[in-house]
Amino acid sequence: MKTLLVLNGPNINLTGTREPAHYGALTLPEINEKLAERAAELGFAVDFAQTNHEGEMIDILHAAPAKYDGIILNAGAYTHYSYAIRDAIAAIAPLPVVEVHMSNIHAREEFRHTSVISPVCRGQIAGFGWKSYLLGLEYFGGAF
Amino acid sequence: MKTLLVLNGPNINLTGTREPAHYGALTLPEINEKLAERAAELGFAVDFAQTNHEGEMIDILHAAPAKYDGIILNAGAYTHYSYAIRDAIAAIAPLPVVEVHMSNIHAREEFRHTSVISPVCRGQIAGFGWKSYLLGLEYFGGAF
Amino acid sequence: MKTLLVLNGPNINLTGTREPAHYGALTLPEINEKLAERAAELGFAVDFAQTNHEGEMIDILHAAPAKYDGIILNAGAYTHYSYAIRDAIAAIAPLPVVEVHMSNIHAREEFRHTSVISPVCRGQIAGFGWKSYLLGLEYFGGAF
Amino acid sequence: MKTLLVLNGPNINLTGTREPAHYGALTLPEINEKLAERAAELGFAVDFAQTNHEGEMIDILHAAPAKYDGIILNAGAYTHYSYAIRDAIAAIAPLPVVEVHMSNIHAREEFRHTSVISPVCRGQIAGFGWKSYLLGLEYFGGAF
Amino acid sequence: MKTLLVLNGPNINLTGTREPAHYGALTLPEINEKLAERAAELGFAVDFAQTNHEGEMIDILHAAPAKYDGIILNAGAYTHYSYAIRDAIAAIAPLPVVEVHMSNIHAREEFRHTSVISPVCRGQIAGFGWKSYLLGLEYFGGAF
Amino acid sequence: MKTLLVLNGPNINLTGTREPAHYGALTLPEINEKLAERAAELGFAVDFAQTNHEGEMIDILHAAPAKYDGIILNAGAYTHYSYAIRDAIAAIAPLPVVEVHMSNIHAREEFRHTSVISPVCRGQIAGFGWKSYLLGLEYFGGAF
Amino acid sequence: MKTLLVLNGPNINLTGTREPAHYGALTLPEINEKLAERAAELGFAVDFAQTNHEGEMIDILHAAPAKYDGIILNAGAYTHYSYAIRDAIAAIAPLPVVEVHMSNIHAREEFRHTSVISPVCRGQIAGFGWKSYLLGLEYFGGAF
Amino acid sequence: MKTLLVLNGPNINLTGTREPAHYGALTLPEINEKLAERAAELGFAVDFAQTNHEGEMIDILHAAPAKYDGIILNAGAYTHYSYAIRDAIAAIAPLPVVEVHMSNIHAREEFRHTSVISPVCRGQIAGFGWKSYLLGLEYFGGAF
Amino acid sequence: MKTLLVLNGPNINLTGTREPAHYGALTLPEINEKLAERAAELGFAVDFAQTNHEGEMIDILHAAPAKYDGIILNAGAYTHYSYAIRDAIAAIAPLPVVEVHMSNIHAREEFRHTSVISPVCRGQIAGFGWKSYLLGLEYFGGAF
Amino acid sequence: MKTLLVLNGPNINLTGTREPAHYGALTLPEINEKLAERAAELGFAVDFAQTNHEGEMIDILHAAPAKYDGIILNAGAYTHYSYAIRDAIAAIAPLPVVEVHMSNIHAREEFRHTSVISPVCRGQIAGFGWKSYLLGLEYFGGAF
Amino acid sequence: MKTLLVLNGPNINLTGTREPAHYGALTLPEINEKLAERAAELGFAVDFAQTNHEGEMIDILHAAPAKYDGIILNAGAYTHYSYAIRDAIAAIAPLPVVEVHMSNIHAREEFRHTSVISPVCRGQIAGFGWKSYLLGLEYFGGAF
Amino acid sequence: MKTLLVLNGPNINLTGTREPAHYGALTLPEINEKLAERAAELGFAVDFAQTNHEGEMIDILHAAPAKYDGIILNAGAYTHYSYAIRDAIAAIAPLPVVEVHMSNIHAREEFRHTSVISPVCRGQIAGFGWKSYLLGLEYFGGAF
Repeated sequence: MKTLLVLNGPNINLTGTREPAHYGALTLPEINEKLAERAAELGFAVDFAQTNHEGEMIDILHAAPAKYDGIILNAGAYTHYSYAIRDAIAAIAPLPVVEVHMSNIHAREEFRHTSVISPVCRGQIAGFGWKSYLLGLEYFGGAF
Repeated sequence: MKTLLVLNGPNINLTGTREPAHYGALTLPEINEKLAERAAELGFAVDFAQTNHEGEMIDILHAAPAKYDGIILNAGAYTHYSYAIRDAIAAIAPLPVVEVHMSNIHAREEFRHTSVISPVCRGQIAGFGWKSYLLGLEYFGGAF
Repeated sequence: MKTLLVLNGPNINLTGTREPAHYGALTLPEINEKLAERAAELGFAVDFAQTNHEGEMIDILHAAPAKYDGIILNAGAYTHYSYAIRDAIAAIAPLPVVEVHMSNIHAREEFRHTSVISPVCRGQIAGFGWKSYLLGLEYFGGAF
Repeated sequence: MKTLLVLNGPNINLTGTREPAHYGALTLPEINEKLAERAAELGFAVDFAQTNHEGEMIDILHAAPAKYDGIILNAGAYTHYSYAIRDAIAAIAPLPVVEVHMSNIHAREEFRHTSVISPVCRGQIAGFGWKSYLLGLEYFGGAF
Repeated sequence: MKTLLVLNGPNINLTGTREPAHYGALTLPEINEKLAERAAELGFAVDFAQTNHEGEMIDILHAAPAKYDGIILNAGAYTHYSYAIRDAIAAIAPLPVVEVHMSNIHAREEFRHTSVISPVCRGQIAGFGWKSYLLGLEYFGGAF
Repeated sequence: MKTLLVLNGPNINLTGTREPAHYGALTLPEINEKLAERAAELGFAVDFAQTNHEGEMIDILHAAPAKYDGIILNAGAYTHYSYAIRDAIAAIAPLPVVEVHMSNIHAREEFRHTSVISPVCRGQIAGFGWKSYLLGLEYFGGAF
Repeated sequence: MKTLLVLNGPNINLTGTREPAHYGALTLPEINEKLAERAAELGFAVDFAQTNHEGEMIDILHAAPAKYDGIILNAGAYTHYSYAIRDAIAAIAPLPVVEVHMSNIHAREEFRHTSVISPVCRGQIAGFGWKSYLLGLEYFGGAF
Repeated sequence: MKTLLVLNGPNINLTGTREPAHYGALTLPEINEKLAERAAELGFAVDFAQTNHEGEMIDILHAAPAKYDGIILNAGAYTHYSYAIRDAIAAIAPLPVVEVHMSNIHAREEFRHTSVISPVCRGQIAGFGWKSYLLGLEYFGGAF
Repeated sequence: MKTLLVLNGPNINLTGTREPAHYGALTLPEINEKLAERAAELGFAVDFAQTNHEGEMIDILHAAPAKYDGIILNAGAYTHYSYAIRDAIAAIAPLPVVEVHMSNIHAREEFRHTSVISPVCRGQIAGFGWKSYLLGLEYFGGAF
Repeated sequence: MKTLLVLNGPNINLTGTREPAHYGALTLPEINEKLAERAAELGFAVDFAQTNHEGEMIDILHAAPAKYDGIILNAGAYTHYSYAIRDAIAAIAPLPVVEVHMSNIHAREEFRHTSVISPVCRGQIAGFGWKSYLLGLEYFGGAF
Repeated sequence: MKTLLVLNGPNINLTGTREPAHYGALTLPEINEKLAERAAELGFAVDFAQTNHEGEMIDILHAAPAKYDGIILNAGAYTHYSYAIRDAIAAIAPLPVVEVHMSNIHAREEFRHTSVISPVCRGQIAGFGWKSYLLGLEYFGGAF
Repeated sequence: MKTLLVLNGPNINLTGTREPAHYGALTLPEINEKLAERAAELGFAVDFAQTNHEGEMIDILHAAPAKYDGIILNAGAYTHYSYAIRDAIAAIAPLPVVEVHMSNIHAREEFRHTSVISPVCRGQIAGFGWKSYLLGLEYFGGAF
């Protein structure tokens, strides 16, 4: 059985209370629960992690190839400047990493239009609220 | 029963023969067939259109609210400069338009990193080959 | 008797339903009717054309010198990037072309601040809703 | 009866002698006379002011709401950098201010393409020589 | 016998009347006649097409590999922004496309210095009036 | 006893009526009254000046070293482009000048993010409404 | 009784030894002692925190609404690029955060002129050495 | 006998006390005295004016053609942004205006490298302290 | 009989061994031999020069009007920054200079997209390997 | 005896497995072993540290002056944006810090061309694989 | 007796025949003759040199301190990009170098507005034709 | 026995007298002597060359593969703009070229931060004074 990691970055732990216009009203545990259900239907295991620390995110990525078959990554604001996370993703290639964002980053402030991690990710899903994660799951569901 | 439109822009009619490293080996009719199957499973009708003409794409978008409940749009290279298509999408709001790209536009040439239509689309899915369309379908499947 | 052409570009056919905050509540036929009335008072004939197609707009411009004494042009979003339309206007010089915009393009998104056709137009009128066209008529009224 | 102010900025007092290719051969008093005639026909009073001083223009704008129903403003070169005048116009909202230019500023030097006051004006009329003011009058004529 | 296509873009149908300082006094039919003569001397067939429509140009390019051994392309102003035409040229690789311009685009307005289609063309010939096309023929003459 | 000057620039005379969301509901005389009270408590004299004229502001700054021990300066929109005022402040060094803004200029339009006078001021206080001035007073209170 | 947090970012623990020309000769504990005294006078409690870790700063901000009525934040160099901290501040709105800097960041290297956190802070105080914190206290003193 | 105007802009009245490293130790009256002496030797009259007001400088320039045969202009910091003064100089053409600067503006801060008035001046002399004016006199001395 | 100069710039002496993917496998003498043959057929004399020295290239250009009727110039990397060579070409006007490049400079690194000499050359031929020179010859062949 | 610290940043722990084309096939422990040997020959002690955490790197730098005579620093991707690390290096001046990179950062992606820490480092060594560290050692070997 | 060097750069040997609108009708020897006369009047010796070679200009500058008391330098187009000449001027400090240009470089093409050598020159004189050199002489005349 | 070339560019012949703060007090012959000694210890021959001429540097590079096994290159200011030297280095690949700078170019003026030759060099060593060359030797010493 395949195993995936849903890895969330800074401030996403506050989802549900933080700027609901952008991020929706579900909390992160509630989102994770829905994802776990769908993963079960699709027939693979899923782990969840969240960190506000850039370095910790890098540590988690480094450890991932030993445990996971793919990663659904919402790097939060690190998306826009963390070349260190970009290098970490490149370093664990060819493990597939799917970049997701709850909000449509391309429709918000200028600085959110650029993702420095996109060039080393498989693809990007943005703008569908918590369903962005769900579509990430579907991709892996279809991919195996 | 809900009805969707999968609308493709310039050069996508050549998919399958054109730069397969970026766009995969399936032809557009083959992709459409797969999408039609999945749409049927999800319980809604789907139409397909493709045009190389910017003006025609605008005409199709204008006519869409009368016939469709949502659009999966791959505007091809118009994505990067057609403010006219952007205005057309804005003009038919609140009809939901999901922007898809087969290639990961954020990992290619600089000019492909900018989508002028993103700010008026619901969200963006990019980089999963023909499955980008499929994930668009899943979004609408989950959304209704 | 002098004859003018009021030429409208992409998405302007939706005026009246599309983003009324920017473009007002009158439909394009209603606007044209008002313009026809005023043109009659000013003593010249007026034709109306609208197209969403860049190439068609160029074709219309090419044909204009044989039929018209002046053009009131709202090129819609093509204003901001269509160097081909710019070249078409330059190519039919010295036929006077007055650039009009219903919204104040200089007060909206950054990309609307630049008009690539301005350097080859007689002048620009922007921000007065449908009356921008009316002021264009007045200009020609006073100009003959 | 409504009253308008035609307010001119730096160097416009030299109109008629200064660079006639850009600004025409009529002097400012001659232009004002024509505008006064047309205003009379349209049934409203009109005052005229001209200043080369940025601060004085701000003072005049501050005093305007007590006396005028609208302003036709040619801010001259201050158009391109005077954020102080921009703030003054914003400060007297909702008094309508119409931005006019005799030359087509969009067809001249790069620095003239940007108007820092446009975002707080009702609209812009540029390129019609002294008739740019006339069209401003017509706008108010139609607007009341 | 080899067959070439000479494909012209927007406004080039007006050559001979339009801005003769930039484009010369020969009309497009006159230019084509000269090219046909030279092609005959060089021993290959040549077809001619002209369109003001971006989409139509893409359609023509798509159809070209079935009929032609090479293309001499003057994309007119589309040269400077049509990523869609660029993608079309890339899509029909390895069919050789030679980019030509009658005027020296590098010596004119800033926006004409950039060609978005150059990176997918074989080479560029610019500045020799109608002889730019002739040199394109010579290239193919020498290339076979 | 030390004496301070509170010097205000363009449009600040309209405070209280002008865009209250940005600048608050107190009028400038009311603000000055509060500042005078607090200055008295802190044990120093305070004068007040306001001008819409860039040149006058320079004149006032030039005269300041002879009369004042410090300046609290809100240069209004001149903040963003008046290199002449910047030079005036540098010219009266080492007289301490504290730059204040009622609104948080860094959270507003792009052009307000840059202060050309900051490099020659002691420090900057922005975003606290009329209390920005008060904090300026406190600084001098603590500094003597 | 109200409680405030004075939160310091990277390298500020070295204050007093590090580049005294920019940051003064007082150590951080000495500064905090002075702030504690003044807070007591103003009648509210104050806590102090310092971290060199971006993630830890985010964690502290997340926890703040449960304990504090306001934050005085010197984010150090993170000010200039940490969109993650910016998002954290936005996420805990409407808790007021006052941005402070000991040096006048607008008078130093270009990269220090931009604060990515300013748009989500109440205001900014920069350039007054350790008294920048003191003025932050005064603001809260006046605000309650 | 020919007459010249030496026209000085903002802050130059403080020369001699202001930043002597950049501007030297002579006061403006002392400089003027030296210039008057040299003008007498060269056989022409010279007037002197100084203003900190942009509008006043424009007024003086407007009046110049009636009285002067040439102008030596140090526009101070207005050099770098006053398009209004630029327009005033252009408006009094062909009266020759020589741009002078005491400091070498090209060797100082970036913003001083650009002169918006240069394109309408006869030439520029910068970097020779008060002798920059003297060289301006020599030019006119040689020119008559 | 007319005489042409084929003038080559830095590093072109290494053609044939240097980066053959960009520049082909023929050596410069071999290319020159082919050009000499074709020139003979076209009925004019041709000289050849190559230099790695910018100053020498300028000297050669200066001497050219006395000896040549036209120049085919490949300025190598000097193309991208030598304003001195640009001035030299302008200085010998109206002698026609045709700019050639073996590689398609518009399809390579960003810095090669700009030619500072183009604005003073008759036209540009790029991307056809050694045949770029040949096409230059054909142009002159046709031009006389 | 002098003591050095070799301090490595994010992702460098994966050296040997990660993108060997850029970083070589030796693992970090293997590299460190070689460096220890050479340090012994040169007669000084050397410690090794690696961290993926920006904050931890700052902590280590802060502690360094008490223990080390010099630092060889490979800050990994933090090199390109961590102004916090830059400030930390500046804060521990005059302790010499030598910046090293295994790959030639100036020959890779645009974002790697800029090092924000260079201005506060002694010098930079880049592009020699693990020998970049070795050259750092040699520098210190020669420096004592 | 003091000795000066008038050093001219690329293309200036063609003065008199080259673009007389920019550079005047006098040849370089004629200009030099006039300068020699004036130098004699001012009581110092003057040598003349001209080179089209960047390297030679550097050699001449290196040798200058041994022979000359000052240099009048017209570096021609090297002015705009030769950092090597800039370094040469800096290297021979404190020998005074006065930068001259016959044309007003600030009124011509954009690339001529920047002088990379200005920051290391005493001052700049531009726009007075051959009299620019003369003013350079006057400066040294006054300076000794 | 291997042979290296130490190749120095413009102004480096003045090392020892020129700006000692940046370049140290040793003369170039003294540096070369030290390098020759160390080369002898490392067991390979070394030649030295210096030129102020860009073209001569290119000639030397072209000749290098026949005589040398590696080059230590300090291109001086040419580093920042000589695409011709860059092409020369690329043309002699795979001969290894190590780029060295005595000063830390990344810590000086903005224009020195960019090296146009870096992308074709093996690596870069900057900031260690004359020891930058020494480290270059060590690299080759270790490399053989």
